[in-house]
Amino acid sequence: MRQLDEALLEDIVVGSTVLGSGGGGDPYIGKLLARDAIRRFGPVPLYSLEEVPSDARVASIAAFGAPGVLVEKLPRPGDAVAALEALEAHLGYAFTHLAPIEAGGLNSVVPVPVAARRGLPMVDADGMGRAWPTIDLVTPALYGGRATPLALADEHSNVFVLQSANSEWAEKICRAATVASGCITVLALYPMSGREAVERLVDAPLARAARLGSLIRSTRPRAAIAERIVADGGGVLILEGSVTLVERRTERGWTMGSATVCGIGENSGKSLQLLFQNEYLVALRDDGSPPVSTPDLIMTVALETGEPVPAEEIRYGHRVAVIGLPCDRRWRSEEGVRRSGPRRFGYDFEYVPVEQVASASPRD
Amino acid sequence: MRQLDEALLEDIVVGSTVLGSGGGGDPYIGKLLARDAIRRFGPVPLYSLEEVPSDARVASIAAFGAPGVLVEKLPRPGDAVAALEALEAHLGYAFTHLAPIEAGGLNSVVPVPVAARRGLPMVDADGMGRAWPTIDLVTPALYGGRATPLALADEHSNVFVLQSANSEWAEKICRAATVASGCITVLALYPMSGREAVERLVDAPLARAARLGSLIRSTRPRAAIAERIVADGGGVLILEGSVTLVERRTERGWTMGSATVCGIGENSGKSLQLLFQNEYLVALRDDGSPPVSTPDLIMTVALETGEPVPAEEIRYGHRVAVIGLPCDRRWRSEEGVRRSGPRRFGYDFEYVPVEQVASASPRD
Repeated sequence: MRQLDEALLEDIVVGSTVLGSGGGGDPYIGKLLARDAIRRFGPVPLYSLEEVPSDARVASIAAFGAPGVLVEKLPRPGDAVAALEALEAHLGYAFTHLAPIEAGGLNSVVPVPVAARRGLPMVDADGMGRAWPTIDLVTPALYGGRATPLALADEHSNVFVLQSANSEWAEKICRAATVASGCITVLALYPMSGREAVERLVDAPLARAARLGSLIRSTRPRAAIAERIVADGGGVLILEGSVTLVERRTERGWTMGSATVCGIGENSGKSLQLLFQNEYLVALRDDGSPPVSTPDLIMTVALETGEPVPAEEIRYGHRVAVIGLPCDRRWRSEEGVRRSGPRRFGYDFEYVPVEQVASASPRD
Repeated sequence: MRQLDEALLEDIVVGSTVLGSGGGGDPYIGKLLARDAIRRFGPVPLYSLEEVPSDARVASIAAFGAPGVLVEKLPRPGDAVAALEALEAHLGYAFTHLAPIEAGGLNSVVPVPVAARRGLPMVDADGMGRAWPTIDLVTPALYGGRATPLALADEHSNVFVLQSANSEWAEKICRAATVASGCITVLALYPMSGREAVERLVDAPLARAARLGSLIRSTRPRAAIAERIVADGGGVLILEGSVTLVERRTERGWTMGSATVCGIGENSGKSLQLLFQNEYLVALRDDGSPPVSTPDLIMTVALETGEPVPAEEIRYGHRVAVIGLPCDRRWRSEEGVRRSGPRRFGYDFEYVPVEQVASASPRD
C-alpha cells in the first residue's frame, strides 16, 4: 500500500494523460478535483491488486461524456458520491475499494475525491490500460464481466441505476441520457469482487502513470521526452511535426474530429492524420496506411515543453511528437482485437502491433 | 368496484381513443394486449377513487415514446412488470393498485396486463384526463407530485430506476433513453399513496371512456356519432371535411406532424390544420385563429364509421369530423394553463376554452 498524496497525484495525472491516448479527460481538471479532496480529507490509500482481498467489493468510478465539454463544465465530486451510493443502495452492500475504469488525466483520478470523501481506499487497476470512447470496451468484458448494475448521476441531481441486457446497451443508454443532460455525467459501474478484480483488471496503471509522470517531470532537455516515453513503453516515435489542421465537434456525446500533423526538419514533406473519438483511434499516412491504430495507444506530446496534449487540446500550430505505445497484451488476443481493433470503430484495415509496423517499414 | 372484463374493455378502448386527443397509443394494440391478459388471468377489479384506502400504494403504468413506432413494435407486458418490480425493489414496498397515467387507446389499458399478471386491482383514475406528449404534464404536478422515482424498461431487457431533480428532467432522460432504445419503452411512475391519488388524479376516466365507447357502439346512423360525442362531453363540432394533406415523422421520440382537413358540404371552402406531437395540440383556421387548442381535447372521428382516428392513423382521403372537448377543470386554472396551454408547446396565442370560442364565433 502507498498513499496517493499531492506529490504522487501530480505525476499520476501527467503520466495518465499519456496513457489516455488523447482522451480520458482533462489533466488540469483531474488534478484540481483530486488535489482539493486530498487537501480536505487527506491522502487516499492506494493498494496494488495483489493486496486486494478476494472478498473485497470493488466499483469503478468514471467521468462520462465529451471531454470537450468537460473543459467548460467541471464534474462535481458530490455527483460521483451520489452515483456510488445509489449503486450501493441497489446492491444492498457497501463497496470497500474504488478503481478507475480507464487511464486519463481526469479518469485515472476521478475516483480520488469519492474515495477521500467516503474514506475508502483505491485499487491501482483499471479496465483498459488506456482510454476508449465507450464503457463496454474493458478487460473485464473479456471474462464475461458486465458494466451493470451501474449508477449514473449528473449535475442536475438526476441519478439512475441501470440493469442492462449487456454492456453495449449500457453504453447506448448512458450516452443518450448524458447527451440529454449536457454531455457530462459520472458513473459508478463494473461492480466486482476482489477475486474478479485481480483476474480481470489491468494491473498497476497508476504506478505506470506515476513513473511516466516522474520521467516527464525530470527529463532534460524537454525535447527528449517523447523519445524517453517511447523507450519506457517499448513503443515507436511516429512523427515529429506541426499541427496544420484540426477539425473538432461535439457529436452524440463524444468529442469527434481529426488533427493533421506535418513533418518538420528531417521529416519535412511527410504528414499524418490523427482521427479521434474522444481518444486518438488511428493515425493515417498520406498513402492511407496506418503506422499505429487502436488498440495500441496513440499520443501527442508537445515538443517544446514535453507536456502530453490530449485530442481536445490540440491546436493549429502546436509542434508535437506523435508516439505509439503497445496496449495491454489482452487487447492483442484474437477476441481483444475483435472488440477493440480498427474495424470495431469503422476503419477497414487489420490491426498490426505498432512495433511490427515500425520494424516492417524502416523509419523513413 | 366493477370488473374490467372483455366487454367493458371493448368500450373503454374505443372511448379512451377519443379522450386520447389523437394520441395515447393505438387502440387495436391496447385491446389485443389487455384482452389476452384478461383471457389468461381473468378480469381485473377496477375500483373508483373513492374506494381506494388512504394508505394504498398506487403506481401508474405507461407506454412511452412514439405511437407511430408502436404500430410496428408491440410493447411486451413482461417489460411493464419488470419496470413495476424494479420500482418496488427500489422503494422497498409492493404496490396495491395500478392506474393509467393518461387516457388513450393503449395507455388507458396498458396497466391491465400488468395488473392481471400480478393479481392487482386497478384504479379508475389517471393523471391527465386526456393524453399529452410529455410525462411531466399531469394533475399530480399541480399538487407537487413527482414522476420519480420511476422505472423504465425496454424490449431489450434494459431497466433503470431514476431519481430525478424534477419531472421535466425525468421526461428528458426517459425520452433520450427511449430514442436510444428504439422509441418505445414502458414506465412505472408517479408512485403515490391512496390519499394522494384521491386528491391529485383525474377521477373516473375509464368510466367516461366506457360510456363514450358504448355510445359509439350503439349510435345509428354512424354519421351522428361525432355530434353525440360532442353533446356528451359539452364540446364543439369544429369541422366536417376530408383530409387533404398529412405530414408525419418520428422525431426525438415523438410522432410529429400535421393534418389538413378541408370542409365538405355546407363547410366547403373552409379548412383546418391540426398540429400534433403524438397528440393533437392545436387546430388552426385559414386565418391562423385557433377554434380549439391544448389543454382542451381535439379529436378526429371517421364520418362513415364513427371510429375515432388517432393522429398516427389519419390518412389522405379520410372523411372526418374534428371535435373539441373541454379538458379537466384543473387544466383551466392559471397554473394549469401555464403548464399545458398553447405557449407551453411553442404556439404564440392565449388559450380560450373551446366552448367560449364557439359561442364567440357563430358556427359559420
